[in-house]
Formats: sequence, C-alpha cells, structure tokens
Amino acid sequence: MTTVLPSASDTASPVASPLATSLRSHTCGALRAEHAGARVTLGGWVHRSRDLGGLVFLDLRDRDGVVQVSFDPSSADDETRRTAAAVGIESVVLVEGEVVLRPAERRNAEMATGEVEVRATAIRVVGAAETPAIPVARGRGEKLPSEDLRLRYRYLDLRRPELQHSLMLRHRLAQRTRRYLSDNGFLELETPILTKPTPEGARDYLVPSRVHAGEFYALPQSPQIYKQLFMVAGFDRYFQIARCFRDEDLRADRQPEFTQIDIEASFVDQDDIIRLAEGLIVELFAENGVEVTAPFRRMTYRDAMEGYGIDRPDLRYDLKLSDVSDVFRGTEFGVAATVLDAGGRFRGLVAPGGARFSRKEQDELQALAKGAGAHGAIFLKRTDGKLEGGPAKFLRPDAADALGLTDGDMAIIVAGPDHVTSPALDRIRQDVARRLGLVRDDALELLWVVDFPMFERDPKTGALAPMHHPFTSPMLDDAHLLDTAPEKARARAYDVVLNGTELGGGSIRISDPTLQAKIFSLLGIDDETARARFGFLLEGLRAGAPPHGGIAFGFDRIAMLWSGAGSLRDVIAFPKTTAARALFEGAPTHVPPEDLQELRLRVEEEGK
Amino acid sequence: MTTVLPSASDTASPVASPLATSLRSHTCGALRAEHAGARVTLGGWVHRSRDLGGLVFLDLRDRDGVVQVSFDPSSADDETRRTAAAVGIESVVLVEGEVVLRPAERRNAEMATGEVEVRATAIRVVGAAETPAIPVARGRGEKLPSEDLRLRYRYLDLRRPELQHSLMLRHRLAQRTRRYLSDNGFLELETPILTKPTPEGARDYLVPSRVHAGEFYALPQSPQIYKQLFMVAGFDRYFQIARCFRDEDLRADRQPEFTQIDIEASFVDQDDIIRLAEGLIVELFAENGVEVTAPFRRMTYRDAMEGYGIDRPDLRYDLKLSDVSDVFRGTEFGVAATVLDAGGRFRGLVAPGGARFSRKEQDELQALAKGAGAHGAIFLKRTDGKLEGGPAKFLRPDAADALGLTDGDMAIIVAGPDHVTSPALDRIRQDVARRLGLVRDDALELLWVVDFPMFERDPKTGALAPMHHPFTSPMLDDAHLLDTAPEKARARAYDVVLNGTELGGGSIRISDPTLQAKIFSLLGIDDETARARFGFLLEGLRAGAPPHGGIAFGFDRIAMLWSGAGSLRDVIAFPKTTAARALFEGAPTHVPPEDLQELRLRVEEEGK
Repeated sequence: MTTVLPSASDTASPVASPLATSLRSHTCGALRAEHAGARVTLGGWVHRSRDLGGLVFLDLRDRDGVVQVSFDPSSADDETRRTAAAVGIESVVLVEGEVVLRPAERRNAEMATGEVEVRATAIRVVGAAETPAIPVARGRGEKLPSEDLRLRYRYLDLRRPELQHSLMLRHRLAQRTRRYLSDNGFLELETPILTKPTPEGARDYLVPSRVHAGEFYALPQSPQIYKQLFMVAGFDRYFQIARCFRDEDLRADRQPEFTQIDIEASFVDQDDIIRLAEGLIVELFAENGVEVTAPFRRMTYRDAMEGYGIDRPDLRYDLKLSDVSDVFRGTEFGVAATVLDAGGRFRGLVAPGGARFSRKEQDELQALAKGAGAHGAIFLKRTDGKLEGGPAKFLRPDAADALGLTDGDMAIIVAGPDHVTSPALDRIRQDVARRLGLVRDDALELLWVVDFPMFERDPKTGALAPMHHPFTSPMLDDAHLLDTAPEKARARAYDVVLNGTELGGGSIRISDPTLQAKIFSLLGIDDETARARFGFLLEGLRAGAPPHGGIAFGFDRIAMLWSGAGSLRDVIAFPKTTAARALFEGAPTHVPPEDLQELRLRVEEEGK
Repeated sequence: MTTVLPSASDTASPVASPLATSLRSHTCGALRAEHAGARVTLGGWVHRSRDLGGLVFLDLRDRDGVVQVSFDPSSADDETRRTAAAVGIESVVLVEGEVVLRPAERRNAEMATGEVEVRATAIRVVGAAETPAIPVARGRGEKLPSEDLRLRYRYLDLRRPELQHSLMLRHRLAQRTRRYLSDNGFLELETPILTKPTPEGARDYLVPSRVHAGEFYALPQSPQIYKQLFMVAGFDRYFQIARCFRDEDLRADRQPEFTQIDIEASFVDQDDIIRLAEGLIVELFAENGVEVTAPFRRMTYRDAMEGYGIDRPDLRYDLKLSDVSDVFRGTEFGVAATVLDAGGRFRGLVAPGGARFSRKEQDELQALAKGAGAHGAIFLKRTDGKLEGGPAKFLRPDAADALGLTDGDMAIIVAGPDHVTSPALDRIRQDVARRLGLVRDDALELLWVVDFPMFERDPKTGALAPMHHPFTSPMLDDAHLLDTAPEKARARAYDVVLNGTELGGGSIRISDPTLQAKIFSLLGIDDETARARFGFLLEGLRAGAPPHGGIAFGFDRIAMLWSGAGSLRDVIAFPKTTAARALFEGAPTHVPPEDLQELRLRVEEEGK
C-alpha cells in the first residue's frame, strides 16, 4: 500500500481550500470540474461502498458533501484496492489521488461533485468504525429510525446532512446577529449562570454550593434583571445570545435549556426597538437568501383578538372573525338570550365553500371548539340561497346575508364570553384554513402586535397578573387608569409574529422606582416579597435609571423555522427529550450519597 | 421649563450619530468641534455639577464620555436653571441645547469633548438618583472604595469609565474572535449546560432535577467531550466562547464560572492548531492596537523546566537557570554528597549585580525557596574577584568562574531533586528579576511550550496522572514507551504563554479507541469507571473518529491582560468574590424547605 503523504505541499491544486490542513488538501464535498487534474489528499467518512470485483468505489463524505472515489487497477495497487474493499461504512479514511472528470454518461447531476471523481492511488484507515447502530446514509424514501434511537446515538445522527445543514445555518444566523447588533452599537455582555434563587421561583433550577454547603444558587430563567441593570450602569446597548433555563413539565416542543437573542437599549421608545428588531429580522432572512422588507405590518392586541381570536394571528390566510351577535339577538334560538344577557357574544367566521363539509368534518370542528373550552360550534351553510343548519329556522330571512354567506359557504359560530370564544375560534380558523387549502405556504407574514394590556385578570379570582412581566411600562396616556381601571391600561409591549408563530417580544421597561412599586402593589406583591425577589433591581432604579427597553427572540425557534426543521431538537446539537432527559449522555442521573454529603444534602425516599 | 422634545428630526447635525434614538440626537462623549452650531438632545448621567450663582454647569456622562453642559441666563430660563442646579449627582437627565465652541482659554485638553460645551435650553430629569452609595466620579488621586463595597453596589461601580472600557474591550475581543474563527471555517456550536455528573467529579456543580426528583444534572467543567464528539460527528471545525464551571475552593483569582474560547478541528496535526491559534492571538492584539508577529518562539517542556524551572517561563528577562552540580561534586560541602548521591542536583541562576543584596533581601529569597518546599537557597557572591558566602570555602579556586559570576554578581543556588529545585528557583527568578528591575515592562514575549510529558508520576505513590487530560495523544515516536517507560512518553500537547502567563493550551486527541483504553488503564482507571465517566466518548471513537485536536484559551484572563485590569473581577460584569459569593445579588442563599421538598431534597444539619 502506498503511504498517504500527509502534506499539502505536493498536492498542486488550482483552487486552494481554506480548510486545507497538513492531513488534507481539500474537503470532499468541495471538489468540482475545475479541480480536474489536481492531486488531492482527502479525509472523510465512508458513506457508501461498492466492490465491482477489483474495481472499488467509495463515496467519501465530510461536512461539505460527498465525492466518489474510485480504486481502479490502473492506478491503485492490489493492497490499496483490498483495503478500500474491506473498509467498513462510516470509517474514517485518508485518500490520495487525482481528480478526474467523469465520462459524460457517468456524471451525476444530483451530486454537487457529480462531474468528477477521485482516482485513488492510496488509502489509509485512520478511524475504523464498528457497524453503525443507526444508518447515516439512507436509501431514497428510507425512513429515519425512531427519535429516541437517534438521540441515543446522537454522534451518528448528527452526521446526517440535514442536521449538519441545520447546525451550520444556526451558526451563520448567530454570526449575522452579532455582526448586525455590534454594527449598531450593541455590546455583547455576559451575565451570570450561577445567580440568586427567587422566592416562589417555582421553575428555577437550583444549584447547591459546596463551598457554602446548605446554600443554593439558581440558573437564570432569563437575563431580564441583569440587562436592565446594564442600562442602569450606563452600557447603553446590550445584547447576548443567552442560555436560559426553566425547570418545568415540558410541552411538546420546549427544552429545559434554551437560547435567546437578548437585547436592551437606553434612551429609546417603542419605535426605536421595533426598528432595530426589524433590521435584525431582515438580516436573518437575508442570511437564508430570503428578502423581506421593513417596516412590518402592525396590529393592536385588541384588533388581533377581535379579528383572529389570538394575539399572534397567522395572516397567510384571511378567515377573519366577526361579531354576529345581531343575527341572534331577539331570536327564539335556545341559548341566544342567555349568552347575550350575560354579556357574551356570537362570533364566527365564513368558510368559503365550507357548505361541503361532511358530517364527520363538522364533528371534528365541533370537537376542536369543545377542546378549547366552548360549549360547541354552530354551523350554518347556504345552499341554493337557503340557510341550513341547527338554528337556521329561528333566524330572520336576511340572516344568510347578514352572516356574509354566499352560496356554498358555511358560517362557523361560537357563542359565549370572549375568553371562551376566542381560543375556540382560533383553533377552528387554523383548522378550516388547512382543510380548505387556504394557507399560502410560501408567504412570510410578519406582524407586530402592539398595545397589549398591562394585566390579565383571572376570571375566577379576579387577581391581576402581568401580561408580559412586572417590569413592563404602561403607555403614558394610560397611566391614570392604573388607579381606576388597571385592566384597561395598555402596556408599551410588542410581539413580533411570523405566520402565526411568535418570534420574539419585548417592552419598554419601568425606569421609575415609584411606578415600579405601584405595579408590584397592583400585582399583590407586598413590599417584603418585592424586596426579596427584585430588591437589587429596585435599588438600581433608585440609583438613576435611563428610559430603556428591549426585546428577546427565541433563537432555537428561529433556527428551526429558517432551516425547515420539524422540531427544536433538530437545531440543538445535544438536546433533551420532552421528558428533559439527555438520552445520549444519560442525564439526569442518581449520584452516590457521598457526593451529596459534601453538599450537606440528602435525597428523601419517595412518598415521604 | 421648556419641554425637551424627544425627536431627532429637529436637531440638525452635521454628523449623524449611529446611536441616535427618538430620545437623543447624539451621545454625550461623541461631541467635537465639528458639531459646533448643531442643536442636540442628549441623555446622560450627571457626573459633576457646579452652581456659580445663576450659571450652572453639569458634566453629563454616557458610555462614550463626558461633556460639559452650561445653563446660562441668556439661553436657559429661570426654571430650567433651577432644575439644573437642583438635580442630584448620578441622576439621568435629557438636555436640549446648542453645541458651541468654548473660548480658547476655557478649552480642556484632558477631555475628548473639551473643545465644546452644550448651551442648554431645556432639561428634564427622567431618572432621579438617590445619593450614590459609592462615588462614580472621583477626584484626582481619590482612592476607590473597598472591593466588597464596589461588588455590593456593582451597578454604580460599573459606571466607572475604567470598567466601561474593560467590558467594551471584552466585547470587541469576543467579536474579533468569532469573526476570525468563522472566516477560518469554524462553526460556533452550543453545548449543553445541563449535562451528566461524572463519578468522582469532585468539582462538578450538581443540579437537582424537579421532573426527575432524586436525580441530578451537572454543570460542565469544560465542553471537552462534546467538542470531540463534534469531530466524531463530522462538523470538522468547532468553536464556542463557552461558560465553564468549577466548584472548588477558590484561589485568589479564580471564578466559579468562567469563559473560555474553545476550539477543535479535524484532520489536523499540532502545527495546524498552533498556526490557527497564532492567527487568533495576532488578531486579538490587533484589536487592542498592538502588533505582534507569528510564528511565535517554541520551547520544549524539558528546556523550559531546565532553563526556567517552570513550564510557562516569563521571557521578558533572562536569568536562565543552569546545572552547577559539578561545582559541588566531590567537595566537603555538607549536603553535596547527600544530594548528588540521591540523584539530586545543584541548580541556580546568576543575579547580575546581586552581590549588593542585603542580609534582609537574602532572607526574603531564602523564605521564597523554603515556601516552595526547598531546604533553602545558597548564596555565593563575587566581590573583588573573591567568592564569598556559606560554602565558598569548600569550593575549588575556579568556582566563581564555573558559576558564571563576574564581579558584583551573586549566584543563587538550590539543591535537591528537580521537583523541589524547579519551583523554588522559578519563584526566586521572578523575584530577582523584579528586585533588579530586569523586567522589560513593554515587552510581549509569546512562547509555545511543546513536547509535554504524557504523565506526571506522583513522587509518593508512584501513580501516573495525566499532565493535560486523559484524551491527549502521545507523540507517534513515543508510542512504544507507553509499555516500557510511560513517564518518558511525550504528548502532542502545547501551551501558549505570554510573559509568564498561560493564555491557553491544548493537544491532539486520541482518536483510536484501543489507544484510549490503554491510556485509561495506565492511569489506573478500570473499565467500569471508564465506561461510567467517558462511555459516550469511547462509543463515539468506535464509530469512526478522524484525527483531531484543539485548544482552549482563558477568555477572562485575556480580557484582563489586554485591558490592563488588576483582577478577573474587573472584566466580568457580575463576578463572584474569591469566596464564590455574588455580593450584589446575594447568592448563594438558603432556600425555604418547601422548595427543596419538590426536589425530594433535605439539607442536613451541620456537623451531622
């Protein structure tokens, strides 16, 4: 076997590779027709292998792609060909050879390297692989192994070109973010991961200290307070691509640790932050080769809830909700009086062509409404000018027109208080849009939702809770409402939505410690609790705070949407399962009691 | 009081500020003579204030610097001047006015903005400050408050221009690092913070899980295994500016959480990593306006230990050590035979002009030697051609020449085995260099130390321990020594040193699982422990690993050295004390037993 010479100097190449090292001259996936004639040294993984009796082909893979390497009796000696034939799939080899153009009939238009192959003169196996537990190269249409298996063998699954692409895109998005924000005067400042537990911090991860056994740090749910303190300290513009932690029962697509693009600026108003954030989003799309233009559309929270039943409407389709209470008012229809007298409304949408919905489809929509907490949905269709469906007989003759129905349409209506009808109609709207094929799949509907209320009132207890977080500033015009009707006060808060998904959100913060104390009091947070939880922020505000505000974007989610991945787990190198387990490393895990002794901790028996 | 109009549109300026917002047109510190005549709106902190009876001066500060604002009866009405006179130090104000050139005699060459002042027409206090707990503006020569006090009021201390400068430099170093590494094909990939506890991981921070009560994650001491797995997974080039955690008694300048520039690459040899790392260091110096040239000097570990007694010699001064055993061999000097027969040596350095060291100075040097574990130091000086000092009378006539002494010099010698003489002579060498003023303060002596041994042998137990870490590859030429004399085998490991401080270090890793198993066995790590601690790395290596290696730099330390800060705490926004406490937030802290119940944990009474 000829030795593979680990030196780039003897591999003349017309195009120097930026990834050349002392062990390779080029990457596998970068070879093109222009390299024909060059002697190259490659390193890569054996992606596929074929032995046609003396003539051996290996597909060699690295992060840049796959290239075909041929071991031919005219250029490779017997031992070299025997080694090539014997090497196992997914083993790492170094190969030396010449780039040659493939004959026209053997070119492969589906491979970026398909015009060439490497005629090898030497091979060295530098990383032999056992038979892979899950396949990396898949046949056309071959299914992926189960996700649990892929997470267990993550180092193999990460070799898949799809995951490689997603993580490389994520890298580029991170760099673009940093460049844009740096260019706009933002300073990347690191905040602590070992920080203070918040009383009632039900979702804090606690970290026992060894040096101070019996005491605990906590991992941050977000750098919110630190970034406000950066403004108090005069850093003026801060950002961080920050790791955040939340210890909670995980919904389908949450991670116990996640990454956000965290931004804060001083001497700003809402429009300043919105303009900066729009600039960032435009850049991030551009990094993916997509052009979007700012400014984005804006909609008030009120209009969003009224027209779409949700504060992050998907505008890739219309199906706007309307109030059709008047159609039912004064009729004999069973629930009409009850609902309307209680202050409820009839709200609904028109599904164009929905008259053809089958019984089964109506049942499914009905189930959606009920699943969202409504008593049910009302279906009214117009066929040959006639209104049909449950309550049709109670309604006045022009009801079909009043509902906005043309022939073949169906109105889907939910009755009740808004906090019941909105979520039900949101789900119905999304479902109907998909059923009727109304979603413009290639559309990118970017939207700012603004003028959020400061507070939500618990329908049962009547207690106020912050809609965003307790540091959000009210709109100046609404400050007087805090004393009289706080639930009507609007916040200087804003969310940015893409196709019905929230990309990020933020607010102008309270910079006046007196106002901050008042908000705490409205939220039922007493002085002592406020001092214990947020003492160091309040102290900061009293030391001279500039007007400031910011925004945070879910970076994992952006990476997922941009790469077209199906799950956050596909854009995180080593994710946890929905049960918060790291299957690959095997965490969390039990630890020996001795290790806990040093921390002065003991695990109690279950059920104690 | 005239209203401050928060609009940039009516503030015509010849030079648009990139930091202009709806509340300010310029930053305070950016105003120059070229802005004269411009109407500006500024936001900033009241740095100093003087009321000359009707004429009020405020120095207004933001992160860009300080500018003088005057409130003069000709431009500011009574109420405006009253407000200006009354506003407290460190309060945040918005100011509107016109930039005017100062008369020649009032220009201040010490301020970057000293050629101009802002003649204010309006002021608004937007963030009133209580009297600051510690001062931000200091008089000439005024001392800083104690560090504990400064850490307690960190949001005030961070307003100091020195800390602002250090953290802004740190930001720029981080961006430069990312740009350089990205441009060289490195992908920034995030690794988990919640990972698996390692058995015997005595310095792991443990994190109890709530979802899986009774089980624990651990915070990573470094992303070492993950970065090797990225190579196994084919990402080829990885970097991260990564947070690492170590729960240990803190030395003077350590932090429980710290940041490292973490780098790994595939298909590389030592020279590839060294070249890449040199490129990075050159860039980081350039970011600070300093030119250094690569390649840096290289020295073997053996030469470093022999010539300087330490593996990170400070080359800003000479004072090289030499072996002077021959001068003592065969003499009647008390310990000579004992030391030499036991395989020890006499080693020392020549302090030029050291003959003038006083008794007291010799005692101090003596104490250094003893503090480092030696029995003591021997002093021999040459005065008027004559050798003087303790053992002089036992030595042969040409001893002064053999020791390399010229008139006025002093030889300082330590006897014993190398592991005793090296640390003692290192301390003496550093001390002597400072005493004699030999340190070239402006020199930047960059050095690679290479050819480290694979292992250190415990002088007492004889057990082998890894010099770097157990994943370090031996030099190919030395592989055979693993079986016969492992302590002689050299590693493919390298450290980069600046003026005696280690900036970073790394190695080529083991990519062969059989070799890795052998190293574990030499280290006395049995199969079961190896599987438990490193199982997922071993499994990865068996799946086809490329030759790979990397390096990690202490980013906090680099930021400290570059900014000239005296402590790591001055380049970390919210640091911990040496006792691992966050004085400002108040962490770690006790948590209520209820919060622990959910984790199924109980804190044991002390002393139990």
